Amino acid sequence: MNFIVIGGDAAGMSAASRAKRKNPELKVTVLEMTQDVSYSACGMPYNIADAERELEDLVVRKADVFRKKQGINLLTGHRAEKIDPSDQKVSGVTVDGTPFSYPYDKLLIATGASPVIPKIPGIDLPGVWVLKNLEDGRRIKQWIREKSVGKVLIVGMGYIALEMAEACKALGLEVVLVKPRNRLLPWMAEELADIVRDELESKGVELYPGQSIERIDSEGDRLSVKTATAALECDMVLVAIGVRPNSEIAARAGLLLGKNDSIAVDRQLRSSDPDIYAAGDCSDAFHVVTGEKTWIPLALRANRAGWAVADNVCGTLVELPGIAGTAVFKVFDMQVARSGLNVKEAEAAGFSPVEVVIKARSRAHAHPGASSLWVQMIGDSTSGRLLGAIMLGKEGAAHRINAVAVGLHQQMTVADFSQADLAYAPPFGPVWDPMLTAANQLLKKL
Amino acid sequence: MNFIVIGGDAAGMSAASRAKRKNPELKVTVLEMTQDVSYSACGMPYNIADAERELEDLVVRKADVFRKKQGINLLTGHRAEKIDPSDQKVSGVTVDGTPFSYPYDKLLIATGASPVIPKIPGIDLPGVWVLKNLEDGRRIKQWIREKSVGKVLIVGMGYIALEMAEACKALGLEVVLVKPRNRLLPWMAEELADIVRDELESKGVELYPGQSIERIDSEGDRLSVKTATAALECDMVLVAIGVRPNSEIAARAGLLLGKNDSIAVDRQLRSSDPDIYAAGDCSDAFHVVTGEKTWIPLALRANRAGWAVADNVCGTLVELPGIAGTAVFKVFDMQVARSGLNVKEAEAAGFSPVEVVIKARSRAHAHPGASSLWVQMIGDSTSGRLLGAIMLGKEGAAHRINAVAVGLHQQMTVADFSQADLAYAPPFGPVWDPMLTAANQLLKKL
Repeated sequence: MNFIVIGGDAAGMSAASRAKRKNPELKVTVLEMTQDVSYSACGMPYNIADAERELEDLVVRKADVFRKKQGINLLTGHRAEKIDPSDQKVSGVTVDGTPFSYPYDKLLIATGASPVIPKIPGIDLPGVWVLKNLEDGRRIKQWIREKSVGKVLIVGMGYIALEMAEACKALGLEVVLVKPRNRLLPWMAEELADIVRDELESKGVELYPGQSIERIDSEGDRLSVKTATAALECDMVLVAIGVRPNSEIAARAGLLLGKNDSIAVDRQLRSSDPDIYAAGDCSDAFHVVTGEKTWIPLALRANRAGWAVADNVCGTLVELPGIAGTAVFKVFDMQVARSGLNVKEAEAAGFSPVEVVIKARSRAHAHPGASSLWVQMIGDSTSGRLLGAIMLGKEGAAHRINAVAVGLHQQMTVADFSQADLAYAPPFGPVWDPMLTAANQLLKKL
Repeated sequence: MNFIVIGGDAAGMSAASRAKRKNPELKVTVLEMTQDVSYSACGMPYNIADAERELEDLVVRKADVFRKKQGINLLTGHRAEKIDPSDQKVSGVTVDGTPFSYPYDKLLIATGASPVIPKIPGIDLPGVWVLKNLEDGRRIKQWIREKSVGKVLIVGMGYIALEMAEACKALGLEVVLVKPRNRLLPWMAEELADIVRDELESKGVELYPGQSIERIDSEGDRLSVKTATAALECDMVLVAIGVRPNSEIAARAGLLLGKNDSIAVDRQLRSSDPDIYAAGDCSDAFHVVTGEKTWIPLALRANRAGWAVADNVCGTLVELPGIAGTAVFKVFDMQVARSGLNVKEAEAAGFSPVEVVIKARSRAHAHPGASSLWVQMIGDSTSGRLLGAIMLGKEGAAHRINAVAVGLHQQMTVADFSQADLAYAPPFGPVWDPMLTAANQLLKKL
């Protein structure tokens, strides 16, 4: 049986490896358009931050290991362009222009997501970058080094933009962040977003919210980014305003698209064609809080979906319960974590959200070295259910959020969550964990 | 209505404050035998570690605040000695020898726990200490300072013993730990206990497991601790071999005792006399994994039980689901966390426990600064249920355990837990959180 995988990153290589391990008789072919497979894309900002390190450090497993040790027919430089579901064939062209076509019995689309690129004059000038794959990372790093970049302008203020701001600061660069909308991190309570803003500004990052980029001009060795009210000079522009699913190949094959034009899949990761699976950033998923489809491109769910596809292709039926939208990122010294729905998402899903924001200490009363920890918690006033939480602090936010995630998977009420027997020791938090304090406060409003 | 509380620490003061807040008409009297109320007992080792700090730093709320601002009749220096359930009276004697007797309508016993003191010759010598209350902490600190203590011998290797070892090392003292049984931290897998041992030894702590203390002798300014095979010289002895519930007053009143002679209470925290509640370290609790009674003296459940008693006394019916036995402590640079049952406890409760121990990284592949994180996870091969976990590492163990705790409250299976959408970012862990890796490995054995 031919199992073909389009895309050789998180979901694709997870599926290929697991399928071949489960069923060594299976013919597994991976079509990857770049030369890189199985790397930690999320690690790119941290790698770029360190001029001494090579991007290759991020490669988890080299292509030849997949080929020689695992027996996977891994074809790099192969761009899949067309799926023919009736003939069960996938075709495309290699990097040197040779067309190819392969028959499949089961196909996995794991094409990931791509940065959204605004259609403005100057977006294709040298020195204007997006961070999509390892090759982009190499080029950005090379550009910074060779052009003696002193000032970077980042378009966007999402978590990749913020991680890149930190990375560029670590390299000693001046950093300017620009975005069209006024609110920084609009999915969190404004008082929390203000804390992130203060953290950025205290580290010397310049913020220009509410500024639409109209054009980019090249002026000698410099770039000039024009907004309605300002012209911002810099040596490099990085565009990080968001990503969109790479679902074009699926759309052309007539497969059903879902949220944000991601490929619609069922709990077994099957697309509208039962022989074609989709997994990772290109596909949608069920949200455990709403029970509805959502599109949240993150690494764990890609890996997990890749495994589930492998199991299903090999005949072990696996259905995924879904995702909680749990995410964490670091902004300089601050940890930002979330799980579940924010207020807007909760309203859109038909809940009656009520929220609290509490500020607690990261360590016990009188324990030295404590910092503040903020918890925004959201519950449904109709059902009493816990809907989501956002946490922020210099310590203790990143791993605490997992307790909320588990509670959301179990569709716990705020009342039940407030009774959880959480850990306490003076170096790690107050007796009443900040999550419990938030739940107790939220209960009063429900 | 007279609500009397015996004991002015975590459970007692939580109950008194909340009851008075909920019902200002209530006459709330607290009988506390020491002069100290409402202090962070768990913070004592960390306070002792810092010669510059006063034990008073640990006082969360001063006695006069309870008296004047909250209107609680707080009587310090009052040792309750007898409860008369038929007459609904509690009597005792003050620190200056005056007898007292008060009638109650509702009574809360919140007498806490006391260190177990071995009956060996020399246990009452000057320089032999237990760490029970703030006054002990003051005396120990004074002794170390005034006697120019250079070497401390700690009897016991539980978490208070280990925290005190770290505290004494911070003061520049030589530290020797002695215990009768061979295994350090016998509730965790031996390979995990070995890591804790290595951490202690690398910090210069001398360990003597498998050594029963037979006697302590005073030799001039020094103490000599005799075991079957050794005589260990030191300037101070600290006994920390465990605690037992202070349930004598309850037993004398004919109340039912439960696990480890703690006061047996129902989910509303009522003892066998419905007008007498018990909460905190002196009482038992339901374990959410077994559904059976257990006795685990820890701070959060004491505070929570205090609140529940207040609610019930004030007429708002509250039933507590129980505890998961979640605990965390720090041993020098190592975080040790647990929740749920260990293998032995699981067997005793009638489960068929299966365990895995996995070693993961605390940060993502190729992310700098990673250390190791170990997870021991225990599941039931009959039901597939998650029974407990123990985690260990220099970072990421303390707060991660809360996800396990929530899962245990929900009686999740290992399979369901393995599907949790946990947080990932390179600075905070691998894509597959170590808890998920453990769950995935455990699933293969179930």
